[in-house]
Amino acid sequence: MSDPAQTLEQLRQALGDDAVVTGTNISQRHYSDWTGHAPACPAALLLPRTTAHVASALRICNAARQPVVPQGGMTGLAGGAVPRASDIALSLERLRGIEELDPAAATVSVLAGTPLEDIQQAALNAGFVFPLDLGARGSCQIGGNIATNAGGNAVIRYGMTRDLVLGLEVVLADGRVLDLRNKMIKNNCGYDLKQCFIGSEGTLGVITRAVLKLAPQPGPTSTLLCALPDYASAVSLLRRIQRSVGTPQAYELMWQDFFRLGVSWLENPTAPMSLDYPLYVLLESAVPGEPLETLLEQAFADGEVLDAVLAGSQAQARGLWKIREATAEFPLRMTPLNFDVSLPIGLIGDFVERCRTRLEQHWPGNHSVYFGHIGDSNLHLTVDCTSLPQPAPILDIEELVYSAVGELGGSVSAEHGIGLLKREFLHHSVGPEALAVMHQLKDCLDPNGILNPGKIFV
Amino acid sequence: MSDPAQTLEQLRQALGDDAVVTGTNISQRHYSDWTGHAPACPAALLLPRTTAHVASALRICNAARQPVVPQGGMTGLAGGAVPRASDIALSLERLRGIEELDPAAATVSVLAGTPLEDIQQAALNAGFVFPLDLGARGSCQIGGNIATNAGGNAVIRYGMTRDLVLGLEVVLADGRVLDLRNKMIKNNCGYDLKQCFIGSEGTLGVITRAVLKLAPQPGPTSTLLCALPDYASAVSLLRRIQRSVGTPQAYELMWQDFFRLGVSWLENPTAPMSLDYPLYVLLESAVPGEPLETLLEQAFADGEVLDAVLAGSQAQARGLWKIREATAEFPLRMTPLNFDVSLPIGLIGDFVERCRTRLEQHWPGNHSVYFGHIGDSNLHLTVDCTSLPQPAPILDIEELVYSAVGELGGSVSAEHGIGLLKREFLHHSVGPEALAVMHQLKDCLDPNGILNPGKIFV
Repeated sequence: MSDPAQTLEQLRQALGDDAVVTGTNISQRHYSDWTGHAPACPAALLLPRTTAHVASALRICNAARQPVVPQGGMTGLAGGAVPRASDIALSLERLRGIEELDPAAATVSVLAGTPLEDIQQAALNAGFVFPLDLGARGSCQIGGNIATNAGGNAVIRYGMTRDLVLGLEVVLADGRVLDLRNKMIKNNCGYDLKQCFIGSEGTLGVITRAVLKLAPQPGPTSTLLCALPDYASAVSLLRRIQRSVGTPQAYELMWQDFFRLGVSWLENPTAPMSLDYPLYVLLESAVPGEPLETLLEQAFADGEVLDAVLAGSQAQARGLWKIREATAEFPLRMTPLNFDVSLPIGLIGDFVERCRTRLEQHWPGNHSVYFGHIGDSNLHLTVDCTSLPQPAPILDIEELVYSAVGELGGSVSAEHGIGLLKREFLHHSVGPEALAVMHQLKDCLDPNGILNPGKIFV
Repeated sequence: MSDPAQTLEQLRQALGDDAVVTGTNISQRHYSDWTGHAPACPAALLLPRTTAHVASALRICNAARQPVVPQGGMTGLAGGAVPRASDIALSLERLRGIEELDPAAATVSVLAGTPLEDIQQAALNAGFVFPLDLGARGSCQIGGNIATNAGGNAVIRYGMTRDLVLGLEVVLADGRVLDLRNKMIKNNCGYDLKQCFIGSEGTLGVITRAVLKLAPQPGPTSTLLCALPDYASAVSLLRRIQRSVGTPQAYELMWQDFFRLGVSWLENPTAPMSLDYPLYVLLESAVPGEPLETLLEQAFADGEVLDAVLAGSQAQARGLWKIREATAEFPLRMTPLNFDVSLPIGLIGDFVERCRTRLEQHWPGNHSVYFGHIGDSNLHLTVDCTSLPQPAPILDIEELVYSAVGELGGSVSAEHGIGLLKREFLHHSVGPEALAVMHQLKDCLDPNGILNPGKIFV
């Protein structure tokens, strides 16, 4: 590595003094992400205003073998944007704004530092929706969403972030600018290079611009809570709905434990139905109530649904969602250890039983709750650390859960990425041959290893 | 390169005598694809039965620096699977069959040599659809569909082949087997390596297995033919339909020339409406007639639609489709020069005018027709070479069309790939920086350049 002071001087000359921040002038929000994991003040914070500045910065850092950590809105949940004290952080926050909304093509072209919510709003204003949606919408930036291939609330209907990206502009580690912008759904002109950068957590290139797909605005939705006898019914009900009225906007499964917790935390803890059913699903569909009711009658007759409540008003719909949104209160009411995993849809029920049994064997009386977007194979489980021996055996629990995921062919990261926090568990889902090829790809695109070193791989 | 005879002997020992075919024992269908371009009998044809055999074959060929051309159903339209006399062809046809259909996960796991139609049928039998569909369905193989990221008839609703692939097994040039099989919609475990191989036309690895997404079976569809005043109305009608009744199953635009030709070729050439409208759209929607009629009334009132026919029976629907399917008769009734390009949706109308004007300037009286899947940005145009001076100036016309595509930010290949036939025109859609990174990726995964050399790149 070259002399760090000399590198900083080169960066100041190339980007301007105001774009190179050091020491206590660096806001603490650049120290860690929403996990608060391993906060550190980076050696410098770069605030480029243009793609050309990003390119200059990377060219200088690459020549100096200076590690660079790309940063978006810092809302990640895997530590992917957390710097070490010797790293230079590169924030995209000044590359902000919507450059073009093309209503004929149904696309929006944006700078990487644009907050997700700004893009959603621009889409609405033009009569579309940008269907990527997640809790951090006001703070997260689209560049980070793309770099982590964010999931969120609408995946069952619209897919992951990858499915919403038509084109990118990316700066490579050596400062070359790759213009991969594209507005076409169909485009088979050689390798689809943008795919390499989506979900690569800032380790292969820095995303500076994106062209995104917009979707038509859906009509009003119906909200329905159903009680189910078993996990198999959750899957068959979903398939029944898809066949008869189309894929729902949301299909949120809650196991009994979660449902009871959610109801008990309501301001007015009145259950919309009995608390004794094994499973509950909250679903949102863009079809009016009547076809849904016909469908429900058949599901009742087949024993697939045991009880159901169709929200009669917006207020009632919000009330049902409040139960599912108990997750927002986890940090306030318990010490949550959260998992974000995915499994083949048919195996999620078995996985829950397996996991629950093993946790009970090791830590009798522990409190864990299960819920998930099962239509897109995603299960969340949360263990309350206050129900465990202290200090809580975090790593042991993680190993227990992730090895059970691996046994069933699942993924240790459904939507949050690997970052720093899941590197040790990646082997449960990725074999040595695939890992070796990932390293090859990394060496190919970033031979000096300056981009986000230490992330994804141990 | 090592001694070819010695390489063949090693291949016979590894794969068995019956899996290594030479000389006149090689069926001519391995000489070229559906274009009939540059047919050649390869030095040998390999017919491996297992992934392990594919791996052995590539290991041997890689050590010998022996070029290998992967082959599927040979239905390609860009020459991507056409061998040279010195190449060894590797056909996946014996890796055929459906290994598992998982109704809970809505996935099907198949061997690469399985014909597309077999997969469609298996999906139907299980109450799903596999929505990839194209004319070659009975002959093409899924491995080839994936290697070329095939488009087809249902892209507007279900996306390209890439959007239907959840997992792959791939053999690398050096014989390493990459198991990237996956049944989950959400899986963010490091780089999504399978994306590198989808659409890479056999130049980065040989696909041996795939895990594919199934979709729910749609209900019965309505078929509608509308006459439109201009191209802008074609786009606004599409967006209107998407907003009110959802994305249609098909949205096929025909310019007047094409429509007149299609009607004139009908067995009973009775036009379903006047032949004097500027544009016609044939659309298929999975909603019943009534909401469509309401929507049409509004479109009429807004001047977006000038005339419309809603098919009252299956037979009438088939009759309307017959006009669009005139393309199947192109090879019989003219000497077609076909183009498959894509453009930002809002620019397709301008492109057609630009292209038509320039063709007329250069070759007055030439006959060209325009039609396309405009909802997915795809335009086809066909020039009848019999209407041109002889010998027909094919390369000049290609340069004219592809340079006009490049000027408007379009793609010289929407769904067929680059193969041999579009290499010279790739630069109209791909910049030098992106091309350089494609070469880097090729060198990274196939350092000896044995996989399908000469394809995609000049």
